[in-house]
Amino acid sequence: MNPSLKGQKLLVILQYAPDEDFLSRVKTNHPDLEIVWHNPYTAGGGGNGATAKPLPQGIFSDVTILCTWNFIPTPEEAPKLKLVQLTSAGANHCYEHDVYKDKGIDFCTSNGTHPPQITEWVFATFLSFQHRIPRFLDAQKEGEWIRPSLDVLDSVGQRIGILGYGAIGRQCARVGKAFGMDVIVYTMREKTTPEARKDDSYNVPGTGDPGGLIPSKWYSGTSAENLNDFLAQDIDLLVICLPLTPSTTNLIQKEQFQILSKKKAFISNIARGQIINTPDFIEALEKDLIRGAAVDVTDPEPLPKDHPLWKAPNIFVSPHVSWHSNNHRTRLLGVLETNLGRLSGGKPLINLVDKEHGF
Amino acid sequence: MNPSLKGQKLLVILQYAPDEDFLSRVKTNHPDLEIVWHNPYTAGGGGNGATAKPLPQGIFSDVTILCTWNFIPTPEEAPKLKLVQLTSAGANHCYEHDVYKDKGIDFCTSNGTHPPQITEWVFATFLSFQHRIPRFLDAQKEGEWIRPSLDVLDSVGQRIGILGYGAIGRQCARVGKAFGMDVIVYTMREKTTPEARKDDSYNVPGTGDPGGLIPSKWYSGTSAENLNDFLAQDIDLLVICLPLTPSTTNLIQKEQFQILSKKKAFISNIARGQIINTPDFIEALEKDLIRGAAVDVTDPEPLPKDHPLWKAPNIFVSPHVSWHSNNHRTRLLGVLETNLGRLSGGKPLINLVDKEHGF
Repeated sequence: MNPSLKGQKLLVILQYAPDEDFLSRVKTNHPDLEIVWHNPYTAGGGGNGATAKPLPQGIFSDVTILCTWNFIPTPEEAPKLKLVQLTSAGANHCYEHDVYKDKGIDFCTSNGTHPPQITEWVFATFLSFQHRIPRFLDAQKEGEWIRPSLDVLDSVGQRIGILGYGAIGRQCARVGKAFGMDVIVYTMREKTTPEARKDDSYNVPGTGDPGGLIPSKWYSGTSAENLNDFLAQDIDLLVICLPLTPSTTNLIQKEQFQILSKKKAFISNIARGQIINTPDFIEALEKDLIRGAAVDVTDPEPLPKDHPLWKAPNIFVSPHVSWHSNNHRTRLLGVLETNLGRLSGGKPLINLVDKEHGF
Repeated sequence: MNPSLKGQKLLVILQYAPDEDFLSRVKTNHPDLEIVWHNPYTAGGGGNGATAKPLPQGIFSDVTILCTWNFIPTPEEAPKLKLVQLTSAGANHCYEHDVYKDKGIDFCTSNGTHPPQITEWVFATFLSFQHRIPRFLDAQKEGEWIRPSLDVLDSVGQRIGILGYGAIGRQCARVGKAFGMDVIVYTMREKTTPEARKDDSYNVPGTGDPGGLIPSKWYSGTSAENLNDFLAQDIDLLVICLPLTPSTTNLIQKEQFQILSKKKAFISNIARGQIINTPDFIEALEKDLIRGAAVDVTDPEPLPKDHPLWKAPNIFVSPHVSWHSNNHRTRLLGVLETNLGRLSGGKPLINLVDKEHGF
């Protein structure tokens, strides 16, 4: 690509006000780059774009680099587009777009900007379930000092099974280990060498497991048999952090819930709702096959008011918010800035989507 | 003490059924020891003894070793008593008992059996607060997919200040560091050498910080000035895990809340309610000096239904339950078993209370 950024135009579409520190650094390092910052979101908006105002006509016309969550233009709207820096860790919402299908246009995720906050959500909800915090929240409203007979199990010696060992899974591993858990992981692609177990995506310093050193055992494969072998390993907490692709859709269904019932796993889904078969999920909760669940993602989203998932036993549902953090903007712009530098230096981009695999 | 346990009688008063594995091991290792296991607690009982049935008359008469939470006999009831193995991490509820004042009777705590579960409670409640989980729990009851404008801050770069660096504080340090926090600690006694920073109390393997290697900075002292210097270090999460002694009563009051308001700390108290001045605490919450609090201990306990602490803004109150864990019995009996072995071998007891300091 172009060794400088002369002639390039960056459009940033974010639910944040322009970050002056970022803009000043980028203008210094890339004086030829034209930058437009656009915030179409109304207050209370967010990553889903549901509350965004329509974009001005022609906004994409000269854009070569686009930073956005889901404002993906058509090839006609953005004829000069070369790079899309997504604000999400997944790219699945782009698969059907023609600009994604165009091999000349690179897509990069913001993989690595979410693990701290999403891992916090995973453990906040799992530990709150284990320690019956919702019950005590309700008792507090009534001013009731009630000490029920508690069947609480701490995490020491419990096993966390991490489905998908990317940036989020790696921070869950670090924290799970600190709580005294045994960590096992599953990856679609086999990773047997120390080199293969490393992760070179963006990583917040001091967090995660970029070296791939934490798991006590690695599982892999693409068949149901491979997956089931992993799920049968007495998992107490199953964290789903795989990307949504055609091969991960409906990955967890009746058969898998049956296997997870052996240890009555708790399921935490912070990936995409479609990875779990929702009717089977509700049935597994109703039949007490699993001890409980926390999901920040559902199928569909938004989850309709009368959807039975809301009322399934022992589930916590939040409206796709676990990625939120005031630190997210800084990290996201850090990824974008890194990629601007790499583009200008002709170096490989970070967090580049492998379009064959979709992540 | 006696090199064997001949002539000794152990009375275990616990809210658990007799642990056959424990009894069988102890009988094998100490065949001369007489053992009585008594469970006076009704279902729903627990550490506070509120729902315990009265003990049989004369139950203490030949007892030399007592394992209990708060069934502390008079010297007349237990004339042969030599060792009290408490089930609690603190000994403050014993200070006024004559058998505690008797220098010939050793008291040991169960320090180290609670850190995993209590640390989980600390992070479950802190992270739930930071991620607005209670708000989403309420929305779920109504089936409402509402995505508020979230002001969520993850823990990366936040500072956890640990007041009292014993077994519980050390596991909080390990977990806080895994979440990306900076860890600073305060101890009453100055600890400047690597040797002094070690903790030799019972430690669940793979947890805690027995070597004292995690904190980035150590503070100490017994004066308000020393304490205030520590509290002024931009603390985001203050975990109170000091024992309650005359010198820690009312340790956190108006002046300290004012200092903590600089960074608007979140306060987690899993020690004893009396360490915080309750009226000042309520005022600090009402005036928004601190961002919030989670307390598993209150002053008084039980907290009366109409007590204003229940309704103070941004506080979570639970009824002294954070020590609960199905693993607690095993660990507790592990401490008792260790001390039986040490007693029999004439070695120093573990978790022995230094009566001068009270812990």
